[in-house]
Amino acid sequence: MRNTIGTNVILTLAGESHGEAIVAVLDGMAPGIPVNEDFITRQLALRRPQGPTDTARRESDAFRILSGTFNGLSTGAPITILIPNVNTRSADYEATHSLARPSHADYTAHIKYGGYEDWRGGGHFSGRITVGIVAAGAIAIDALSRKGISIGTHILSCAGVQDSSFDSADPELTAAQVRKVAALDFPVLSDVREAMEARILEAKAQGDSVGGVIQTAVCGLPAGVGEPWFDSLDGRLANAMLSIGGIKGIEFGSGFALAGMRGSQANDSFCTQDGKVRTLSNHSGGINGGISNGMPLIFNSVVKPTPSIAQAQQTIDLSNGEAATLELKGRHDPAIVRRVCIVASSLTAIVLCDLLSLRFGTDYLR
Amino acid sequence: MRNTIGTNVILTLAGESHGEAIVAVLDGMAPGIPVNEDFITRQLALRRPQGPTDTARRESDAFRILSGTFNGLSTGAPITILIPNVNTRSADYEATHSLARPSHADYTAHIKYGGYEDWRGGGHFSGRITVGIVAAGAIAIDALSRKGISIGTHILSCAGVQDSSFDSADPELTAAQVRKVAALDFPVLSDVREAMEARILEAKAQGDSVGGVIQTAVCGLPAGVGEPWFDSLDGRLANAMLSIGGIKGIEFGSGFALAGMRGSQANDSFCTQDGKVRTLSNHSGGINGGISNGMPLIFNSVVKPTPSIAQAQQTIDLSNGEAATLELKGRHDPAIVRRVCIVASSLTAIVLCDLLSLRFGTDYLR
Amino acid sequence: MRNTIGTNVILTLAGESHGEAIVAVLDGMAPGIPVNEDFITRQLALRRPQGPTDTARRESDAFRILSGTFNGLSTGAPITILIPNVNTRSADYEATHSLARPSHADYTAHIKYGGYEDWRGGGHFSGRITVGIVAAGAIAIDALSRKGISIGTHILSCAGVQDSSFDSADPELTAAQVRKVAALDFPVLSDVREAMEARILEAKAQGDSVGGVIQTAVCGLPAGVGEPWFDSLDGRLANAMLSIGGIKGIEFGSGFALAGMRGSQANDSFCTQDGKVRTLSNHSGGINGGISNGMPLIFNSVVKPTPSIAQAQQTIDLSNGEAATLELKGRHDPAIVRRVCIVASSLTAIVLCDLLSLRFGTDYLR
Amino acid sequence: MRNTIGTNVILTLAGESHGEAIVAVLDGMAPGIPVNEDFITRQLALRRPQGPTDTARRESDAFRILSGTFNGLSTGAPITILIPNVNTRSADYEATHSLARPSHADYTAHIKYGGYEDWRGGGHFSGRITVGIVAAGAIAIDALSRKGISIGTHILSCAGVQDSSFDSADPELTAAQVRKVAALDFPVLSDVREAMEARILEAKAQGDSVGGVIQTAVCGLPAGVGEPWFDSLDGRLANAMLSIGGIKGIEFGSGFALAGMRGSQANDSFCTQDGKVRTLSNHSGGINGGISNGMPLIFNSVVKPTPSIAQAQQTIDLSNGEAATLELKGRHDPAIVRRVCIVASSLTAIVLCDLLSLRFGTDYLR
Repeated sequence: MRNTIGTNVILTLAGESHGEAIVAVLDGMAPGIPVNEDFITRQLALRRPQGPTDTARRESDAFRILSGTFNGLSTGAPITILIPNVNTRSADYEATHSLARPSHADYTAHIKYGGYEDWRGGGHFSGRITVGIVAAGAIAIDALSRKGISIGTHILSCAGVQDSSFDSADPELTAAQVRKVAALDFPVLSDVREAMEARILEAKAQGDSVGGVIQTAVCGLPAGVGEPWFDSLDGRLANAMLSIGGIKGIEFGSGFALAGMRGSQANDSFCTQDGKVRTLSNHSGGINGGISNGMPLIFNSVVKPTPSIAQAQQTIDLSNGEAATLELKGRHDPAIVRRVCIVASSLTAIVLCDLLSLRFGTDYLR
Repeated sequence: MRNTIGTNVILTLAGESHGEAIVAVLDGMAPGIPVNEDFITRQLALRRPQGPTDTARRESDAFRILSGTFNGLSTGAPITILIPNVNTRSADYEATHSLARPSHADYTAHIKYGGYEDWRGGGHFSGRITVGIVAAGAIAIDALSRKGISIGTHILSCAGVQDSSFDSADPELTAAQVRKVAALDFPVLSDVREAMEARILEAKAQGDSVGGVIQTAVCGLPAGVGEPWFDSLDGRLANAMLSIGGIKGIEFGSGFALAGMRGSQANDSFCTQDGKVRTLSNHSGGINGGISNGMPLIFNSVVKPTPSIAQAQQTIDLSNGEAATLELKGRHDPAIVRRVCIVASSLTAIVLCDLLSLRFGTDYLR
Repeated sequence: MRNTIGTNVILTLAGESHGEAIVAVLDGMAPGIPVNEDFITRQLALRRPQGPTDTARRESDAFRILSGTFNGLSTGAPITILIPNVNTRSADYEATHSLARPSHADYTAHIKYGGYEDWRGGGHFSGRITVGIVAAGAIAIDALSRKGISIGTHILSCAGVQDSSFDSADPELTAAQVRKVAALDFPVLSDVREAMEARILEAKAQGDSVGGVIQTAVCGLPAGVGEPWFDSLDGRLANAMLSIGGIKGIEFGSGFALAGMRGSQANDSFCTQDGKVRTLSNHSGGINGGISNGMPLIFNSVVKPTPSIAQAQQTIDLSNGEAATLELKGRHDPAIVRRVCIVASSLTAIVLCDLLSLRFGTDYLR
Repeated sequence: MRNTIGTNVILTLAGESHGEAIVAVLDGMAPGIPVNEDFITRQLALRRPQGPTDTARRESDAFRILSGTFNGLSTGAPITILIPNVNTRSADYEATHSLARPSHADYTAHIKYGGYEDWRGGGHFSGRITVGIVAAGAIAIDALSRKGISIGTHILSCAGVQDSSFDSADPELTAAQVRKVAALDFPVLSDVREAMEARILEAKAQGDSVGGVIQTAVCGLPAGVGEPWFDSLDGRLANAMLSIGGIKGIEFGSGFALAGMRGSQANDSFCTQDGKVRTLSNHSGGINGGISNGMPLIFNSVVKPTPSIAQAQQTIDLSNGEAATLELKGRHDPAIVRRVCIVASSLTAIVLCDLLSLRFGTDYLR
């Protein structure tokens, strides 16, 4: 469905970039789960623009929980989180709003919604909406962590600078890495922050933007989660990730590199260790046949360069169909790769809560 | 849901590799659509093993349409296609069936289904089930083609040999390429068949297997199809593709290569040509903000090397949890890349019929 | 799904009786539809308690639309309506909250939600939540009316007093009746208001409550809407109506009276009038085989007596499982029959928008 | 969705009255459940026409299970049941097929499917399709019974003859009654069979048909099953029942009789007995707030008189829109009330398996 994801644990997103508020409704979380407002606040901070490598738009992300909790715990009824928009500057968009920004949703929204779309700041297609994912996802991440399931996403590459990869063949090592990056405001595994930031600022100085790849790991997920054919674990996660604006691809485990391997290299041999089944390598990324195998769940998502750039671009005017030159104003991120990390972890958590609930019942996370 | 995909146009898959039959139920197709059994037969032939680079299992894929058609046309009621399994040799699996085949679903199925799963030939996780996708997809492909929408998938790379790419910035050229490869039993754009086959046989001779990348293009899809946030066109297609066994990643347009680009390179400028809006490049793969923009829809899917290989592999015995060495018998494909192409096109067609029906109503394809 | 109804046009409800607010998210309405706040206000007034026959709780039902509209028109993005709760008196519930109110959801909520439920004023199970249905339904009713589809519900019986029935065999007469009752704050067709109110007050004076039957009619619905088997028009409406608290049954057309008829009496003969197909009688209530036949859609829903009564009742204490006597405080309706009418019309409108969108596409209502 | 019901346990129905076969796909049943073909055969016999009060069409209902079982147990993969049609006489319908049968789906199907519908014997709208519900439902009924949950439906009234009602305030007595009627080929609680059959034959002799009311009881269902607002237990069951052809209304517990009661009469007081919570009466039919309360689940469904009657009827010719007189040939049931009983029990079982799986996880029924 349109702005809703999930079967048993269900997130609905509403709101526009320059509207009154972003609203996230998280339905189906088990009752009795702590809803920790401090943790939500901390998670929202990880998504927030924070320096010269991000947009100059500054939102406090003060939120209110309107329903679904009682005495600090979830009740089982839908949890509504309201995040008002405060720092909007629609005037930046007035002059050029009929000029379709290349590789943005302006043109497709115009066709689909017949010109009735709210174009201010990208409207419902803006990355601003992801604040709802992070707020709701915080509750999911928190609930999963109390079941021993941890989720983290780091910047695998940005602006051509490469971070090291999760060591996914070793569940304990991966878990330690996940816990570390999950709390970082610039989540990288190795010492690449300065180099990345430098390259981002270089692009920004040229009125340009950069992309990258983010890598998500989930540790502690039990084996046996996911359904064959269409509700597969990878199928569900791919659906979720590709719905995040700017993400244009996803690969599980060794992903596209598997195309160049032989089966004898790519296969993950099973063994037992301390009475637990595991695999010697993890090219499969923790998934066989759409179902979790108990190894770390690993996937990479590619984030395209932010389409909003300061350089002049050729485009058309939606009001008359004529050619036009676009010179963008407004406050834009030269790179959103860092900020997408927490969005990816949050949405992953919601998908996992849903699949765990489907598998083990609605009380599983209590 | 589990073995069902779609909202308005819905495919349900049932059957096992060595069971009596594969069953596909295609519900929600508009009434009055020709159901051409010859075309279904031809499409099934494209999926069928055909030479030394494929498995030695030979299925006739004779099928029967049990419901949903009347006088050769769809009625609007669910169309049931029954494809009996005839050439099964379960004995190949008897001896080793408790040994979990590495990177197969044996172990995860065992955990999820508690040992009750049908292990013969991979059971419900077998690639055999995709015969149902191709049969149902043939009806969808046929229906779309009468609306001017064409779909084709070719082998972009296999066993290290690279084919050329669709020229997706040019809608007419892409359409011509699509029409050409859609009918080929070894779908490649350039003269690479011999080289690919040689490398596949080389791996086979070493008891090994290879993987590759397939590229799918859709031409003629109207702009404005797809929903923001979770029913996005790319999200839906990613869900579908990742549900195909062996596919471990998907990328739209320039995909992972976007990570290394600047925004000024990656952005697709809009222009008008003969009164129609198009883009000068197509790094976006025909999708902006989850919605089709009218340009060719392009995506690549990575196919891992077939996990069934003849070489001895280390694994565990599911019956006792002990270490074991697996030496596989049975008839296996050294590469399934060629055969996955038609599966990808077929499933794409079903997803598109669904999204078009949701957008324009249930009679749209009539 | 839990608190969400619909496929293409989707309503999600959140909030509790004594929580901060009720939230309704209406997703999938066509873009370009006027969202008339005055009309929403008028519809909310029809649901509001208004005199001695209703609860003494008085809510202003001031609402805010947080998303999904732009320049007074729907954008196609989800419409969020926030209705703050202002007149809550949780103290009324403190003393007795562990005593399960007979025929309320206290006990079942306690079992299902493990004691974590918000018990104040019935929490998420309260009739208060229907304010969200009425607010969202107003948009749907308004949109349908511009397509010539009108919806009205009247009190067919209450406290033993009988109103006359819609004359559903005559489409034009029914439409006139519908338009009339749809705007009444005490919706009856004949002169029975005084008698009904007298009987309600009689019960109230005795610390008791009464029930009744409401009758809903829809005029102008095109033939051909609804799906066989499970998304049938009657199946969908029955699902919606039974989800309203207090409604314990539904019947279409002549309903339970059909049990005593012969086929020759019950069958609705077809004829043509002014070139349009209609039926001579309407025992079918406008539905054949789950699909609308173009005649007025008619159904009756039974509303049980309000379970909150002032008389002492025998029950158990949920905190210790022991027998207890319940003497209810709080402000309760001696009858909710009148107030349920507008809820039924509103929810019907949302279901119809969904089925029309599924049938004719997402732009149908524009 | 169209011909599919359920979220976790999912039934899809395909086939037409005079097509090759009826197909039921039951997905999501827990693995390891015995699939007892003898029991399915016995259940199908309960639905089968059996004497002069039923249609003369005689089907053997020989069925084949094509997938989803292994060694007699469910595997967790979709179970496909194929029931071939053998005794079809389409010629009966040839002459009159363009004459819309009053109160049948002929006209609505014609409008919805644009004339492409399979009209032979009612096509996909025929009661014949319910054979798939009974076959799949048998597996569900069997699985539930092993968890102590029993389901039975009897003829509460037919042709004006009244049976006694389930004694639903006494769980043990109800369970005994349920077990008794569940196996009867003419399911009544009291000695009314002869009278009912006499009245049915009386109508038949006059070329007419009769209707009735059926009553379904479920014993042993745990408290806490069902969701508030739209996936309510009553909402889901109402959706299912209303999707059965010929059923035009449903009421839970005391249903429409509640309209004439006071709250003090209608409320079900809670008490404890042998440490278990129960209610003293059961006007609620085992459901409070959409959630099961542990008491017997009781509901009545009204079955209209069979619309196919031998008497001449006024109608229109769909081929030219002109008035016509219809004199039906073909083999019809003067009453389907008896045969609908097992269909209602079967579909109830599938809905309950789904809700139990959603609540307690996919392995609950194993």
